[in-house]
Amino acid sequence: MTAAAGVALRARPHWIAPEIHVDAKKLRARIEALSVFGRPEGGTFADGVSRVAYSQADVDGRRFVMREMRAARLTPRIDPAGNIFARRAGANPGLPPILFGSHIDSVPNGGNFDGDLGVLSSLGVIEALERAAHSTRHPLEMVIWACEEGVAFGRGLASSRIVAGDITTADLSQVWNGMTRAQAISQIGGDPAHIMEAVQPKGAYHGYLELHIEQGGTLEQRALNVGVVEGIVGIHRFDAIVTGFANHAGTTPMPERQDALLAASHLTIAVREAVTREPGRQVGTVGHIEVTPNAPNVIPGHVKMTIELRDLSVATLTRLADDIRRRASEIAQSTKTTIEIKPLSMNPPALATPAVQAAIERAAGSLALTSTRMPSGAGHDAQMMAHIAPMGMIFVPSVGGISHSPRELTHWDDCARGADMLLHAILELDAA
Amino acid sequence: MTAAAGVALRARPHWIAPEIHVDAKKLRARIEALSVFGRPEGGTFADGVSRVAYSQADVDGRRFVMREMRAARLTPRIDPAGNIFARRAGANPGLPPILFGSHIDSVPNGGNFDGDLGVLSSLGVIEALERAAHSTRHPLEMVIWACEEGVAFGRGLASSRIVAGDITTADLSQVWNGMTRAQAISQIGGDPAHIMEAVQPKGAYHGYLELHIEQGGTLEQRALNVGVVEGIVGIHRFDAIVTGFANHAGTTPMPERQDALLAASHLTIAVREAVTREPGRQVGTVGHIEVTPNAPNVIPGHVKMTIELRDLSVATLTRLADDIRRRASEIAQSTKTTIEIKPLSMNPPALATPAVQAAIERAAGSLALTSTRMPSGAGHDAQMMAHIAPMGMIFVPSVGGISHSPRELTHWDDCARGADMLLHAILELDAA
Repeated sequence: MTAAAGVALRARPHWIAPEIHVDAKKLRARIEALSVFGRPEGGTFADGVSRVAYSQADVDGRRFVMREMRAARLTPRIDPAGNIFARRAGANPGLPPILFGSHIDSVPNGGNFDGDLGVLSSLGVIEALERAAHSTRHPLEMVIWACEEGVAFGRGLASSRIVAGDITTADLSQVWNGMTRAQAISQIGGDPAHIMEAVQPKGAYHGYLELHIEQGGTLEQRALNVGVVEGIVGIHRFDAIVTGFANHAGTTPMPERQDALLAASHLTIAVREAVTREPGRQVGTVGHIEVTPNAPNVIPGHVKMTIELRDLSVATLTRLADDIRRRASEIAQSTKTTIEIKPLSMNPPALATPAVQAAIERAAGSLALTSTRMPSGAGHDAQMMAHIAPMGMIFVPSVGGISHSPRELTHWDDCARGADMLLHAILELDAA
Repeated sequence: MTAAAGVALRARPHWIAPEIHVDAKKLRARIEALSVFGRPEGGTFADGVSRVAYSQADVDGRRFVMREMRAARLTPRIDPAGNIFARRAGANPGLPPILFGSHIDSVPNGGNFDGDLGVLSSLGVIEALERAAHSTRHPLEMVIWACEEGVAFGRGLASSRIVAGDITTADLSQVWNGMTRAQAISQIGGDPAHIMEAVQPKGAYHGYLELHIEQGGTLEQRALNVGVVEGIVGIHRFDAIVTGFANHAGTTPMPERQDALLAASHLTIAVREAVTREPGRQVGTVGHIEVTPNAPNVIPGHVKMTIELRDLSVATLTRLADDIRRRASEIAQSTKTTIEIKPLSMNPPALATPAVQAAIERAAGSLALTSTRMPSGAGHDAQMMAHIAPMGMIFVPSVGGISHSPRELTHWDDCARGADMLLHAILELDAA
């Protein structure tokens, strides 16, 4: 009360309403209740979840969330792509809605916070506003995106992508796990025959907000409450093909070897050196390597390895790739091999809208939470929404930076802070 | 003639007989004729051979060689292990025979010189002595060892090993390619029921000589005619287990990574540095690597890799392994990983008998050939024979050091020099 009064003295505009909070207990109870759908047989909450998109666990989890939405007097509707939406009216029905949400599908052996926190906080936000009888100018719309994790049908086929207009009917014929994508979408209540009706035009939303766990360790290490996402990094992927000469590991003297794995080892280290040479949050990873013939007694003749670079700046990504190419050419020379670096894919960064970042920061200020601006190294549905709406994301700390693992954990008070951040960022956006 | 006379003036003993030569044309014709057994469909000599032990190509190749032996008035006999022997009487039947030979089985997609040259030169040696009516003091025995390449039934089950006494009846039950080892041995005319009768006691032979292609590039690079093998290197094999922490390649900042592949890369380079730090012919190879989860977008959490060290000196092998362990511990610390180095196998070196090496060197001198002492980095049947007889090996140059490949090549004049070296080394040994 005193704090609220104090805030009011600092001429806080009426819409900020710092006394409104998401029900933290209910949020926790719902995250725990959702966790049973896809929980390993005989396991507990700590054993994580396998709720792969389009699985029975996914269908059951979605049904659970829709039940909770109805209990909160919302009317969930499933769009032709299988995304679940629900709307709370605004004072001015002519304004475009503010969209917010996340996903509830998981990777196999994933955790109970990735996606789930954003979805169930979104529901909590609407309940909190109802409870406070607080009316927003814009309609509010919460969303549960289908198939975010890129497990089903491979990367890049999230249903949020369809809403952003990136869909062809040919995409619906893709087969995964014995079913076409059209069948998969039907299975969760979508309507593939009218898939194009899921597409939303630019300007359909006043803004898009997503609360998500960080999935990295920066907030925890810096003891900060929230991250204001500057954007979702671009990803440049390359295949490096190292060609040496496979030869007998016993009869080939050391100076005569053309060892492709030795060259690949130097290149792996070079990627790290190039990436860490300048300050910044850029990352570079050699995650996959195939060695031929890969026998203990044969000098490796051929290596194929991936190089993945991520950063918010395309200029940085380009500079890093150039540096790596230069180092690769020196390595090839010194190891008597050849190294070819072939671009595989170039996903551009999706920058968060500055005005939305500012709104999120104001929300942090109004809640007296510490924050930092930071990139999202992982992909999110928000990336798709950036194509059609002003976009922003809120991160809360991941313990140990661990995600996509049953060990994924965000403390309950951080979950509650995140939900309140989402609520107040929506209010800031509503006023802007 | 002048040369021969000159040599005679240097008081050459009567048994050296430098005028005796193996028939080089016949040797070439036989190597070419043998190459059709296991030749790729529609291929030529240059397409190499797949004459895996116990295959039909192996059976046919053995039949061809036995036919050639009979044509040279030898009587081939197959011992219970499937090895083919044939004896030429010596002047003193009470003396133990001098044994010499090699193998004709190959790796898949191997070359036409590995083994074949030693076998067919051995036959040529006996013919040359017949032609010259030159009688040796010791009986001579040529041998075609079965199953040298370690393709069938895995490494370490060469039939020469049985002759050296390393056999248990349990070994005969091992299954490869749908047959037991006993069935395989029967298939090539062996007698598994009496396998123990193949074992020869220490002292059974006056000596064992084997002519073989180098399979490395040392002789060619140094422009030398022959190598006098000092021994067959010992092989120490290790598994290095690197444990880091698998994490998201986008959300894990560079300073927080525990990248097992980065550590493995440093270790691969460290193996090379440890091995090349001191002069000598020791070699070290990282030939096999398994990365987990091996996905482009996940920091590798686990790597298993092999480290193989080869040298004639066990002290060197031990020193290298100690050095690598010390470097691994530094790497583990700097990369925030753990590295465990576990011994897998320790094959001791098999040193060539100094007196046999000296005999080979005298033969090189009598033939005016340039030579060097050198280790054999590859394993050979001679390694087994070292357990029961004074042993020596003669190497001839491999073009480009290439072996176990259709590109394996030894020039015909080098083949002829090698055959003459075998002949004259036998004569030197006969006199010693």
